[in-house]
Amino acid sequence: MIIDGRAIATDILAGVRESISRAGMVRAVVVSPTPATESYLSIKSARAEEAGMHLEIVRLAESATEADVIEAIEEPGCDAVIVQLPLPEHLDEKKILDAIPERLDADVLSIRAYARFSLDEPDALLPPVVASIDEILSRSKVYPAGKGVAVVGQGRLVGAPSASWFVNQGAEVMVVTKESGDLSMLREADIIVTGAGSPCLIKPEHLQEGVVLIDAGTSESGGAIVGDADPACAAKASVFTPVPGGVGPIAVACLFRNVAILMERALQEG
Amino acid sequence: MIIDGRAIATDILAGVRESISRAGMVRAVVVSPTPATESYLSIKSARAEEAGMHLEIVRLAESATEADVIEAIEEPGCDAVIVQLPLPEHLDEKKILDAIPERLDADVLSIRAYARFSLDEPDALLPPVVASIDEILSRSKVYPAGKGVAVVGQGRLVGAPSASWFVNQGAEVMVVTKESGDLSMLREADIIVTGAGSPCLIKPEHLQEGVVLIDAGTSESGGAIVGDADPACAAKASVFTPVPGGVGPIAVACLFRNVAILMERALQEG
Repeated sequence: MIIDGRAIATDILAGVRESISRAGMVRAVVVSPTPATESYLSIKSARAEEAGMHLEIVRLAESATEADVIEAIEEPGCDAVIVQLPLPEHLDEKKILDAIPERLDADVLSIRAYARFSLDEPDALLPPVVASIDEILSRSKVYPAGKGVAVVGQGRLVGAPSASWFVNQGAEVMVVTKESGDLSMLREADIIVTGAGSPCLIKPEHLQEGVVLIDAGTSESGGAIVGDADPACAAKASVFTPVPGGVGPIAVACLFRNVAILMERALQEG
Repeated sequence: MIIDGRAIATDILAGVRESISRAGMVRAVVVSPTPATESYLSIKSARAEEAGMHLEIVRLAESATEADVIEAIEEPGCDAVIVQLPLPEHLDEKKILDAIPERLDADVLSIRAYARFSLDEPDALLPPVVASIDEILSRSKVYPAGKGVAVVGQGRLVGAPSASWFVNQGAEVMVVTKESGDLSMLREADIIVTGAGSPCLIKPEHLQEGVVLIDAGTSESGGAIVGDADPACAAKASVFTPVPGGVGPIAVACLFRNVAILMERALQEG
């Protein structure tokens, strides 16, 4: 089965729209936008509208200081703040992400929100990529407990949170990195999540028949966005997410679902 | 091989003593001490002296408020602060632990220090129990990469950080909890770390011959401190840590080694 990420995203966004009692306001802070980041932001804007929300984009110049970025984050008047990554090199990314107040951190990028998630605390939000994996698995009726899971990559956005989540779900988890990386181990995995950002890293011969292959890697190759998995892997997988059109759109929808959860929480806390 | 935790602890503490250029000052904040906590504190005091440090114990009454505890934590004049757990129920444990400044958090109990550890950041300290596992494995020449590891329990002090660390080391990790818990899976593990706090939970028939069994569980049974593993497991294990006298003393020594690292870092940062 090839996952139709756009259809799932549409479904999630419609649910978000129904669940909120007023239009949500999400601020995206972006420093020195490139054509690629503008393109991501215009997709996020369109999805925000589908969710019944508005994306306010704050564009800062390349010369912005940490204090400027943090001021833009802290400015009142929104339900959530997202910081578009990557930031220019002269800025301390961790310090900036940690400035996002937890009650506004729909992307789970501050270390406090991330730690609550990784410790599986009951009120923690799932990072959008993890929420999209959860969504794909549950819609495919695949239950991670007891399964052998291989996670390719250890990045902050895909590998690290995915490994942490699968451990918390009771799966048997192995992380494969480019350094340690012996891809032959992937043949033993029931579920593979990959976030390496290496085009065509994963090939059909690495897989066991019937594997669930969730490709959350993205890189550019010849002007096109491609994933970590050779598209030929689809034939061997019982569940396969294409790039583009798989994890990406679902993760964006899950981001706005997180905003709705934060809005609901703020409402309850008065 | 049965690990002699006290001998390893003595060795680590002697190394710490040599590495520091002045006596370290560690503050232990304890609310409403019981005979058990007083006993732990007197052990920690003795180990502090072995490390060339002094343990200043601040005892607060049962009626202490969160603000009182946080004030005791924030009072200047020490190289590290430890908060003796458990705290009385009326206090918000997370809030109090998060008040420990990272530069003083030798126990890695604040969520920021914990998150840096779980994300495997280069400057992160290892929580003392994890550091003791690392010490036991490296002294036994057991390398976790590629090994099958079962972690029993998901607590904040043993299960959660151990699982996180083994994933970062490239092991294949499975967490077994009392709820999900099927102990028959332990037979497949090369390394078992247990922190359930259930006397004699793990029995020889759960183990494969030659397993490395690290018992970090402690509970009281008939007035004695016992671990999670039936002592009969020692015969089947290639490496076995007894309780008492295994992980416990090594973890205390690693706590003071963490203090020495924090002191060195403060010195370098001027």
